[in-house]
Amino acid sequence: MASEPHRRDVETSDEQLDEISIEKGFEGKSVPSWQKQVTARAIVVSIMLSVMFTFIVMKLNLTTGIIPSLNVSAGLLGFFFVKTWTKLLEKAGWLNQPFTRQENTVIQTCVVAASGIAFSGGFGSYLFGMSPTIAKQIPEAGTANDVKSLGLGWMIAFLFVVSFLGLFSVVPLRKIMIVDFKLTYPSGTATAHLINSFHTSEGAKLAKKQVKALGKFFSFSFLWGFFQWFFAAGDSCGFTNFPTFGLEAYQRKFYFDFSATYVGVGMICPYIINISLLIGGVLSWGVMWPLIGAKKGDWFPADLKESSLHGLQGYRVFIGIAMILGDGLYHFVKVLGTTLIGLYKQLKKKDKGAQSEDPNAPLPPTLSFDDKRRTEMFLKDQIPSWFAIAGYVIIAIISIITIPHIFHQLKWYHIICIYIIAPALAFCNAYGCGLTDWSLASTYGKLAIFIIGAWAGPANGGILASLAACGVMMNIVSTASDLMQDFKTGYMTLASPKSMFVSQVIGTAIGCVVSPCVFWLFYHAFGTLGQPGSAYPAPYALVYRNIAILGVDGFSALPKNCLVLCIIFFIAAIIINFVHDLVGKKYAKYIPVPMAMAIPFYIGSYFAIDMCVGSLILFIWQKLDRAKADAFASAVASGLICGDGIWSLPSSFLALAGVQPPICMKFLSRAANAKVDGFLES
Amino acid sequence: MASEPHRRDVETSDEQLDEISIEKGFEGKSVPSWQKQVTARAIVVSIMLSVMFTFIVMKLNLTTGIIPSLNVSAGLLGFFFVKTWTKLLEKAGWLNQPFTRQENTVIQTCVVAASGIAFSGGFGSYLFGMSPTIAKQIPEAGTANDVKSLGLGWMIAFLFVVSFLGLFSVVPLRKIMIVDFKLTYPSGTATAHLINSFHTSEGAKLAKKQVKALGKFFSFSFLWGFFQWFFAAGDSCGFTNFPTFGLEAYQRKFYFDFSATYVGVGMICPYIINISLLIGGVLSWGVMWPLIGAKKGDWFPADLKESSLHGLQGYRVFIGIAMILGDGLYHFVKVLGTTLIGLYKQLKKKDKGAQSEDPNAPLPPTLSFDDKRRTEMFLKDQIPSWFAIAGYVIIAIISIITIPHIFHQLKWYHIICIYIIAPALAFCNAYGCGLTDWSLASTYGKLAIFIIGAWAGPANGGILASLAACGVMMNIVSTASDLMQDFKTGYMTLASPKSMFVSQVIGTAIGCVVSPCVFWLFYHAFGTLGQPGSAYPAPYALVYRNIAILGVDGFSALPKNCLVLCIIFFIAAIIINFVHDLVGKKYAKYIPVPMAMAIPFYIGSYFAIDMCVGSLILFIWQKLDRAKADAFASAVASGLICGDGIWSLPSSFLALAGVQPPICMKFLSRAANAKVDGFLES
Repeated sequence: MASEPHRRDVETSDEQLDEISIEKGFEGKSVPSWQKQVTARAIVVSIMLSVMFTFIVMKLNLTTGIIPSLNVSAGLLGFFFVKTWTKLLEKAGWLNQPFTRQENTVIQTCVVAASGIAFSGGFGSYLFGMSPTIAKQIPEAGTANDVKSLGLGWMIAFLFVVSFLGLFSVVPLRKIMIVDFKLTYPSGTATAHLINSFHTSEGAKLAKKQVKALGKFFSFSFLWGFFQWFFAAGDSCGFTNFPTFGLEAYQRKFYFDFSATYVGVGMICPYIINISLLIGGVLSWGVMWPLIGAKKGDWFPADLKESSLHGLQGYRVFIGIAMILGDGLYHFVKVLGTTLIGLYKQLKKKDKGAQSEDPNAPLPPTLSFDDKRRTEMFLKDQIPSWFAIAGYVIIAIISIITIPHIFHQLKWYHIICIYIIAPALAFCNAYGCGLTDWSLASTYGKLAIFIIGAWAGPANGGILASLAACGVMMNIVSTASDLMQDFKTGYMTLASPKSMFVSQVIGTAIGCVVSPCVFWLFYHAFGTLGQPGSAYPAPYALVYRNIAILGVDGFSALPKNCLVLCIIFFIAAIIINFVHDLVGKKYAKYIPVPMAMAIPFYIGSYFAIDMCVGSLILFIWQKLDRAKADAFASAVASGLICGDGIWSLPSSFLALAGVQPPICMKFLSRAANAKVDGFLES
Repeated sequence: MASEPHRRDVETSDEQLDEISIEKGFEGKSVPSWQKQVTARAIVVSIMLSVMFTFIVMKLNLTTGIIPSLNVSAGLLGFFFVKTWTKLLEKAGWLNQPFTRQENTVIQTCVVAASGIAFSGGFGSYLFGMSPTIAKQIPEAGTANDVKSLGLGWMIAFLFVVSFLGLFSVVPLRKIMIVDFKLTYPSGTATAHLINSFHTSEGAKLAKKQVKALGKFFSFSFLWGFFQWFFAAGDSCGFTNFPTFGLEAYQRKFYFDFSATYVGVGMICPYIINISLLIGGVLSWGVMWPLIGAKKGDWFPADLKESSLHGLQGYRVFIGIAMILGDGLYHFVKVLGTTLIGLYKQLKKKDKGAQSEDPNAPLPPTLSFDDKRRTEMFLKDQIPSWFAIAGYVIIAIISIITIPHIFHQLKWYHIICIYIIAPALAFCNAYGCGLTDWSLASTYGKLAIFIIGAWAGPANGGILASLAACGVMMNIVSTASDLMQDFKTGYMTLASPKSMFVSQVIGTAIGCVVSPCVFWLFYHAFGTLGQPGSAYPAPYALVYRNIAILGVDGFSALPKNCLVLCIIFFIAAIIINFVHDLVGKKYAKYIPVPMAMAIPFYIGSYFAIDMCVGSLILFIWQKLDRAKADAFASAVASGLICGDGIWSLPSSFLALAGVQPPICMKFLSRAANAKVDGFLES
């Protein structure tokens, strides 16, 4: 579910930019052949950036699960590195190929594909949800058949056999979606505009300044992370436990935790997302949990551990899940409806005339210069359909053989079933994403959980089977929509579909290796990974496992009155969404997003405070200097996110080497402090 | 000694500004009579600002004793308040008198006079040094005859009988110093330029922006102080104990303590002062004290309390005193020499011709337009010499009768003696200050300590007698030089000497009442006032008392080898100053100031870090935007200082009301934290 806010935020004024012909500005520049677009230097830079972004995404996965769009920073940094590289070579006289926007697009595609795996690999959700660490937190469903110890080997193998299917499944449809249907793909379009702008001389100047701003805030954020480290010697120590609004508010997870990452994320996410998070936090931790907590001994036993799902924790998790599922269902129905209506209209149009099926047929004369040139280039390099179909079948066969060896609970016929319906769902997701910019990968994943969970049943390790099925499904639909976004970017930057496909394959391969390794590093460096209340609670791991339990066991596990509350919030999520769509664009931006509201239900609203601080900074900045804020806000935010994210690399190495922070910054009430002072003196 | 950096920093490019005639710009504006310069509204605003600045100066007194020049903020805020006032009246149609620069000068003079008492009243030095609180920290000299319990009544009475003498003693000399000798008085000149600039239309616009900047940083600093308060529930809690550079460095008083005040002070003080403080701190707490501490058991007994002056603390205090005295002696000799040479030259010139003694004689034609107009106005309102002399004699008689009732250790003949030589010293100080901008008030005070201390002797309460004598002397010479500075300001803003004198008298009277009250508030609100290591260590109280002990008892109290070290540092201070004067202006700014180096010897360098941060901010700001930094730096710094200073008002009321902060932000080593966690769980 983290991917929804991820897609929604890069809304650009598409029409405005398109009015002026972009391709006329590039008319003099020749487009290199696709082999010259995927250069060695592009791959080297991609690997570097992929590792970096994997760290960032992994950190976000394991802290809150909210992942903002990192496309802008990937584009910016890719441009910066290759530009520096080519500048150096040029000075040395060794440059034999100038840096083109096609090459830039290749890097962008590769990096986004690689870091996409860090999300769709489920290290913060389904995959980690299989582990004993998470299973132990749930009293029921603890048989050996329902857990799987994490292992680097099987994780890499699993990702390799499932991550490429999505690519092959939608490749044949690229012309229909991009050229014929002219889907907008807002994120892909925005990225293309960004890359195009870099390669004009005016844009290169701005990009240089943006990189400088990014670098400045990167350093600040990195050093701030480093500084914070020194004061975090114990569990409740350091800036991440700063009771900014007092100890009472801290108990209710309501504090500013000085995280540069989430301040940056807050600057990228739309205001309404941040406000929704805050509303959700206040509603749950400020109102509901205290009220439900007062029913202790009545609704649930008073002697339970704080983390028991039969107690207050159960309400937190399941009400959150209900709201997420309600929101997911609404969007599923809505996007599916839009997809079907859109398809119907397209087909009707096609029936009427316009026989442009043949790639070699002359283009219709009504097209603009830009569209003409782009379509021409897009259709030049063809990926044969037989290649795509053969690829899909071969990988599917390998995967049907391999996966049951990894998860013996998931049978071969389950997988065949998934692979038969997957291309349709992948197409739906890619199409919906093109229309609305929402990737519903995690919703399709949850659908797979319910279906396979019910099919396998509780006795045969249905929980694990359904989580694994979720992984298979999510990887396919997520990579499919990513690839189509990239085709759109490629279309608009005149990059060849072949080079797009190749770089997506390379990026996916990088991701399949790097992501599990980075996760493995986090897993071993931070012992409390996945523990509620720790620095890396990985909230969605518990949520996914509980969804699987719900799917397999039904509602038996829920505490008293929890089901009623869940239903209320499930319906509320649908109603809020419905109202959002009903009131029109003018008021819609004031309607909170249920998905965002649900996230703090479980982990509290400390990160929401950070994000609102980010919003506030952006808001004030825009008031003071609108033009500057618009030009530099995403660079500053990227700097903040990247710097703090990269700090987790040395920080995890320090933890692995057994180097612990020297100081504990502790927060005690006055009374506790007096006691401690007495103890320390004696 | 805190007043030396205080004077030195407002160096303006005097010549540049004088090239263009300022008075021509004001030619159309009439100058009101002196009665109309001292308006009721000016006095009301003065009282408000006096209370505010007394709080600020008192806080500085009691924390480190470093007091920057607050003239700019006083001028700015005075302008702002009266301007707002007159604007409101003008809109209501009730304005019968416009706001003139003369009125502005009156406010400025009054506020500086009032807050000057907060410094020269000795609440952070000689007066507090008499109290049992400080006396208890020194093992020797503890008889009842050597201490005096603080009382609001006698403090106000004491200030009233000594603070006005300085004014009367130099009034007759104003024409000689300002008109004949044309002494520069850099601070007074700078203030006059500031006030003049406010009353041009261009300047008023800038002033408005500056006030806005001041207000912004005032609010920030106030709120920051408020925020910090919540986390300071215990002695070693809160941001003021933040081990920014680790616990080891914290032990050596080397940390950034997040004080907005000292960051602001650092922005106002010249770079070399801040660097000197840092060098002094590193030299003492980084090198010397650890080395001397290693001699524990050899040079001094190992079983002493940390605060005992027979141990390490003795080295800290006495070596600091030695350096301060060495610096003071050098400047005393140098300024006295300059004064005598200057006087000699002036007298020789006078002998040659130029008989402008008669105030009604025509002015020499060589004078510039500005000088002509200013001299004319300056000589218009005369304060008769008989008035000044009669005033001096009457107050002296009252004071000779009163003071021995307050301090029975100080005899009437001591006081007569002081009053006979005081006018000469007051003249020296006023003259020296006019030449060099250094007020040596505290050096003259120390001179009085040694003379009266030796005269009274240890048996007859010499310590208290000498501290009281210091107070008498300091008040006279300090107010004398302040008055002369104000005359210079008045001269340049066409304010009448009468209104200057009256406003100085009013300001002094305000100060005599407000300062003891504010001190009394601090004294009762913060129980640990004057305790080493607390938030308000009042370092100079201990230093002054120890100087008195040295003066009375000689060097017998010093621990082993301390005298040798003291002599080395005493001589070093003189040599450094000598080198400073020798190398010429180009390199002089790289030679550290011994007086500044000595301050962290006793209290550590945490505030020096703050001040260096202030320097760094200013430095970067100047690099980025020189013009803006020069225009706004002092406003920003004033805002930071004032906001934090004013926070001490509510903060002391909270303390008096028994409201304690709720949270303790504590810093523990990892090992201690583990122990505490164990204790808290059990």
